[in-house]
This record gives sequence, C-alpha cells and structure tokens, in this order.
Amino acid sequence: MSNEQIQKAIDFVQQNKDTIVAGYKELLHFPSISADPAYADDIKACAEWIVSELTRIGFDNAHVIATDGHPVVYADWLHAGDDKPTVLVYSHYDVQPVDPLHLWHSEPFEAEVRDGRLYARGATDNKAGVWGNLKTFEAMLASSGELPLNVKVMFEGEEESGSPNMQPFVESHQEMLRADVMLNGDGGFHRTEPRMAYAGRGIISAEVYVKGPKADLHSGMFGGVVQNPLHVAAQIIASFHDSDGRVTLSGYYDDVQAIDEVERDRINSGWQADRNEEIAGVPLAWGRGIASDAERAMVYPTLDVNGMWGGYQGPGGKTIIPSEANIKITMRLVPGQNLGSIAESLIDHVESFATDTVNVEVKVNQEGWPFKMVMDGPYLEAVQSALEATTGHRATLVRTGGSIPILGMFNRLFDMPITGYSYGEGDNIHSPNEYVELDAFFLALEGGIRAYHNLSAISK
Amino acid sequence: MSNEQIQKAIDFVQQNKDTIVAGYKELLHFPSISADPAYADDIKACAEWIVSELTRIGFDNAHVIATDGHPVVYADWLHAGDDKPTVLVYSHYDVQPVDPLHLWHSEPFEAEVRDGRLYARGATDNKAGVWGNLKTFEAMLASSGELPLNVKVMFEGEEESGSPNMQPFVESHQEMLRADVMLNGDGGFHRTEPRMAYAGRGIISAEVYVKGPKADLHSGMFGGVVQNPLHVAAQIIASFHDSDGRVTLSGYYDDVQAIDEVERDRINSGWQADRNEEIAGVPLAWGRGIASDAERAMVYPTLDVNGMWGGYQGPGGKTIIPSEANIKITMRLVPGQNLGSIAESLIDHVESFATDTVNVEVKVNQEGWPFKMVMDGPYLEAVQSALEATTGHRATLVRTGGSIPILGMFNRLFDMPITGYSYGEGDNIHSPNEYVELDAFFLALEGGIRAYHNLSAISK
Repeated sequence: MSNEQIQKAIDFVQQNKDTIVAGYKELLHFPSISADPAYADDIKACAEWIVSELTRIGFDNAHVIATDGHPVVYADWLHAGDDKPTVLVYSHYDVQPVDPLHLWHSEPFEAEVRDGRLYARGATDNKAGVWGNLKTFEAMLASSGELPLNVKVMFEGEEESGSPNMQPFVESHQEMLRADVMLNGDGGFHRTEPRMAYAGRGIISAEVYVKGPKADLHSGMFGGVVQNPLHVAAQIIASFHDSDGRVTLSGYYDDVQAIDEVERDRINSGWQADRNEEIAGVPLAWGRGIASDAERAMVYPTLDVNGMWGGYQGPGGKTIIPSEANIKITMRLVPGQNLGSIAESLIDHVESFATDTVNVEVKVNQEGWPFKMVMDGPYLEAVQSALEATTGHRATLVRTGGSIPILGMFNRLFDMPITGYSYGEGDNIHSPNEYVELDAFFLALEGGIRAYHNLSAISK
Repeated sequence: MSNEQIQKAIDFVQQNKDTIVAGYKELLHFPSISADPAYADDIKACAEWIVSELTRIGFDNAHVIATDGHPVVYADWLHAGDDKPTVLVYSHYDVQPVDPLHLWHSEPFEAEVRDGRLYARGATDNKAGVWGNLKTFEAMLASSGELPLNVKVMFEGEEESGSPNMQPFVESHQEMLRADVMLNGDGGFHRTEPRMAYAGRGIISAEVYVKGPKADLHSGMFGGVVQNPLHVAAQIIASFHDSDGRVTLSGYYDDVQAIDEVERDRINSGWQADRNEEIAGVPLAWGRGIASDAERAMVYPTLDVNGMWGGYQGPGGKTIIPSEANIKITMRLVPGQNLGSIAESLIDHVESFATDTVNVEVKVNQEGWPFKMVMDGPYLEAVQSALEATTGHRATLVRTGGSIPILGMFNRLFDMPITGYSYGEGDNIHSPNEYVELDAFFLALEGGIRAYHNLSAISK
C-alpha cells in the first residue's frame, strides 16, 4: 500500500535526522564555486562524492559526465515498470562565491548549526535540492526497497555562472534525459507561504561598438564636420523604445504569449508594490501605458542598456570628439519569443545606424531561453496536494522576471512538462551567512516523499 | 622723422642679437606652468622678472596685479601725446606642461640653441609674444628715447589653463585697460605665409546628471517598470541635433552673424581638406546639408558630447538598471551669439527631459566668449603693411574653430577694435621640443617696430 510506504519513508526521516544533517555537512564541505576556475577540482570532487552517495542508496548508472565546463552528475532508477511515469529530477550542486568573507559568522564551507539553522554557502541554493532529493529517495529505498516511479537524476555544476556549457550537453544527451515530467528542485520551500515560479524570462545580451575618427579629435577643429560616435550611440539607444516605453525592434512582440484572466489576476494580486518601490526608491511608473506594473515586470519582454560609455569621464572638461562609444544591452525575453529572430532583429536595427563615417558593430550572446512550467494538470496537482498534505498550504504560482537557463533549454528541446518541488527554506542566498532551516528541511523531505508517490499515480 | 627712428630701432636689434637671445633664455628659464598649482611661485617670479624688465627699458607703472589665480603683469608708457593713439598690448607668459619629459632632446626650461632654433617650453607659445614686444619697445626706447604712440602692456598668467580668473579681472580694471586698439600677441609669425586668426569660437561647457533609482537595480526584477537613466541620457543627446546635424536648441542660430562673399571665399579657399581628413581618418561629411566643411568648422556653432557614461563598463555583462548617467558637453559658439541666452536655452532643453522618476540636473560654465578682430580698416592695414614691408607678404585672414577666451571678454566689455601682431615662428607648441626660429624672431622684431610706427600714424 502506498500510504503505508509513505509512512515508512517518513519514519525513516524522523529516525535519521542526525545522519541526514551529518551528510548535509559533508556535501556542504566542498567549496564548489563554479565562477572561479580555482575551484574546478573541488567541483569535480563534489560531483564524485554525490555519485558515490547515489550508488550507495541504490541508484544505477551513477556517473560524472564531463562538459567543456563543470561536470554533470547523472544517475537513474528505472525499475518501477513501464506503466509508471519517469521523472527527471534537476538541481545544481555548484554554489556562489563567498565574498565578502569577513561578514560570515562561521566558515562558509564548515557548516554550523545555530538556533536550528544550518549555516553554509549552498545550504539552501541549491545543495538543499541535491540533498533533499537524495534523502527523499534514500528514505523510500531504505524503507521499502523501491521507488514508486522511474527516476532520472541530473545535477548541474555551473548554474551559478550562467550554465554556459549546458546547451550542448542537453542537446547531445536528449535520449538519456527524456522523461514524462521534469521536476525542478532549484527554488524555495516555504512552510507557511509556499510559492512556485512557473515562468521566467530569457536573456539576450549584446555589446555595441560605435567607431568614428581614428583618434579623439579637438572639438574646436573638428566640431561640426566629424560625426560624433557618442551622438550615434545615443541615437541607437534612444531608438530602442517609443514614447510609451514599448521596444521598437521589428517583430519584438509578435510571439509574446497572451495570458488569460486567471493568470492576469494571479500576477497582479501577487505583486508586492510597496516592497518593490522601497527597493527602487522611485515610482515604478515607466511604461504604464503598456500594462500593469506586475505584468510589465513579468509578462512583457524588456530591453535595458546596462552600461554605456565613451570619451572623457574625468574631472573638469576635455574638448574632444571621442573616437568611439560602447553600449552593453540585455533583453529579458518571455515564453514564446524566439531568441534567434529577436537577436537578428536587434542586429538589423543597430546596424542601420552605421553611416559613411561611423562604423557600428554588434556582438550578440543568446544567454538563456525563457521558461514556462505547467500551470495546471496532474503533474502540478501532484506537487500541490503533497504540499497541502505536508504544510496545509498550496503554493501560489508566480512569474519571475529573472531567468533559469536550464529550464528554457528543456522547454525548447523537449515537449516534456516541467513542474517544481524544492527543499530549501532559508535566506541569504548569494550573500554571507546563507542558511537552511532544518525543521523546514525535514518537513520538505516528507512533502517530497508524498510528491513522488502522487506523481507515481499519474497514468502515462 | 619716423623712417629714421624705425631704422635706428632696427639697427639696435641687429647690434644686440646675443643680448636679446640671452634675455630670452632668462625668461624661458621660469617654469611658468599655469595648470599645475606646484608652479605658482615660479609663475609669480616670472611675472616679477618681466616687471623689472619693463621698468628697466623705461616703462612706467610696471607692477604685478594679483588675481584669484595667477597674476597679471601691467605697465604703460603714455608720453606720446593726446593726439596719438593708445594701444593695449596682450600676450601671456604662462606655458603648457612639459609631459612627456622623456621625449625632449634638451631640458624644457634650459633653453638651447640648435641649428638656429631656440628650444624651450614657451619659446613660441607665448613667451615669444612677451619677449618680442619687450624687445621691440626697448629697441625704440633705447634708440630714440621714446615710443611713437601710447602703450599699455597686459601680460596674462593663466591662458593655458583657460583664463578662469580673467573675466573678473578685466571687469574690475576697465579704466586701466581702455585703449584705442588692442593688439593680440598670441599667435604665430610666418615669414613666407603669414596668417592671422581674425575670429574664433567661444565655449560653453556643461555637465548633465541623470539620476534614477537609488541604487543599481536587477534588470530582471525591475526591467520594464523602472525608467533607465541611460535611456533618458541617450534621449537627451539624440535630441540635440536634427537629422541634418543642426543643433535643435531654441534660438540657437538666431544671432549667428552672416558672412559676406569675400569672407566666404576666403574661408573656403583656406580650408585644408586633405590635411584635416588625414588627421580625422574619416570623411568630414557630418552636416554637409548645412554649409561647406570649412564654414561648418569655423563659421557655425557646434554642440558636441565629449564624454558620456553610466552603468557597467567591465568585461562580460551585468544585468542592471544603473542608478545614474552622466554627460559632458561643450558648445563652440560664434561671434554674435550670447552665451547667457544659449546657456539658458541648453538648461531649458535638458531639464525638459526630467520625469516623475528621473531627475535631470544641468551645470553650465560659460568658459569663453567668441571673438572677432577687425577685418579691414586702418588698424589692420597698419599691421598688414608692416608685414609686407618686412616679409614681402600680407597676412591671410583665417577663422579658427578654437577659442581665445581673453579676446572674447574684450569684445564683450569694450568697443575697442582688436587686431594682432605676433613674434613666434616655430613648432611643437603644447608638445615636446617646442622651439622658435631665431632669424624669424629678429625679423618679427623689425616688423613690430614698423607696426607700432604705422599704428602711431592713425588719427584718433
């Protein structure tokens, strides 16, 4: 009986809390900082340690897969039978850098329990996802000798540095990664107010180089006869938006997916206007002719110049026509938009500003596709009912203006539905004194056990 | 007899060449660099040395006048009689910095003669003007005991740093400086191809500060809802010119003085298209719908952004909406334009871009008025015929796109006509190995003697 198996797995968690924390600390001991090449060997050692844990608890085929960047951990347990669904479980084992170190109250890679919290870099983001899934699976395997469904595990090692090598990895391992549903473990578990980001924006970044005279020129001698690259750069930037704030690139909004009333209400009611205005220090008034604040922040694509410079920046003045100007741009794109055609549209738009006297170059990087998880249906319901049974609350579905590159890649390459279940509840991710609440973590393990059992009941 | 006096003065020059060079070297020994406060005492010592020379050769009332910056040297000789005109002689005794020092072949303040050239910082710009006038006056005073006209001497000490304190000085010494004609000595003497800049542009400089959110914001969270200060800065810059290159500030061209056919021909025929295009490395094609290249460079006012920056400038990307953006602007203004009303027009124009969410501040400095010297009449003819008698050539009149702040101040405050006579013929001004051609300098002294005699013949 399923309920009996669930209870036995929950009992296993209750009886092994000390061991679970001890293993957590071991995992947190690896300084798996993906942004700094100096930690490449630590990342690899961390991946191999996870492989050995997966093998120990009963997974098959556990191994480290090299990429041009940091390795991926893969393992599977496919003995539930062909009538049971297969779930692909995603989390990442790399972590953010620890600077500024002097603000930490304990060593970032010597995990320490204080007041029921486990402090260490990665304790929530996202070793909670790695360890939570591992302990959920171990609880079920150790107490029942089996899992209720087929499982593939994929733990990434470079999420915190923008997943630069994951696109070719996913493209070349499509058969291995194929499943009925993907379960994203990179997020937060919040007992009293669970939230789930069901959609996020993609990113295209670009640099524009505007080059004019061969050197800075005296503006008294050449003012009026030599075109100023800063003026052209400004024209380019000014041309990106109309007076309402709409992006003017050709075809920019063509593929933006409309949202229905339910989603619109959800997005607008979840918008924290006061908090956001407090952070910004200005009214969130730009583009109000387009849509509500919440919808502009999450449903609509954007284009922002992140940096721009050229000419003299020091004290006083310098009477020059500068030789060149530079622009850094990022666009946040939403589900439905095609990065390739948007990138082309940007290039065409910017290059049209070139003249006989000013050269304009554009370099575009497609950094990540927008993602969308399921918003209803049995997979989401499996997670929601597990959360409700465990915490008394169902998750509020939210959009995020941010990006999760791997999910965008899966949306694009697979027809696989994606939902999420996360284990970490804490704070200070990407900051000093990151921690996870241990009581919440144990509760999340119970929820995870229920979620996998619920998923196993979905007919393929 | 005037001709006899001229010859006696010329004989004095011929017989005292070694003494003249020795004194030149003494003057060049003072490191009178006005831009660097470390040389303030050297500048003062230089001014006092010039005062003692003026006194020695017979000038009255020679003294140093303190300003909020570097001092002015004043002296006069007013014994020619009320029927003779009074000339105000201008030059500057301060010099440019000497960097890069390692490119000098001899010490910049240890003047050295090589191949008939005297090498030192300031040898041409503009201690040639100071020393040339002093030796011309000494030649006349020593050989005849008198000057043919009334003379006031004003030598400035901060021309090379933009004359920041001369406006209040000139305003508060109007009676002392009043004369029938001003003779500018800051220029070049060129035996075979004399040129005289009869008009130059003025300068207004401005800084614009565009301030948005209280800190850099995450573009994923706030893209689309917070106005980006870089976008507004770009709109401001893009709005300064129409598609033909005309400046769009209200009333900008209203007071620009039209030029007649003679001046137009002169300007266009004197334009060195190949040389300028070689320096720029691009075609001089900007704004060709407005006027010819030469006229745009010299007759029309301009507005250039000299520097602009905001946000992230490092390698890679940073997904931010920057908190602020900055713009540095200079306008080159032409005779007729009023700096005050142009400055107001700029402020109104830029401030109109402020919104509820982006604050726009403008700081404007009126750095120098455009100037115009006489283009015909007896004062110019006095100089031209002296040049012709001395070199066989009359000076070509040219406009310059650059600025001479002091002349603009005099144009504005006095009704006094201005013309010019210069003594320095050399090269590398503002660069290493500045020099003056000694033979040309001695010839220029003869021309100076003739010029003052010609001026003395003009009836008041």
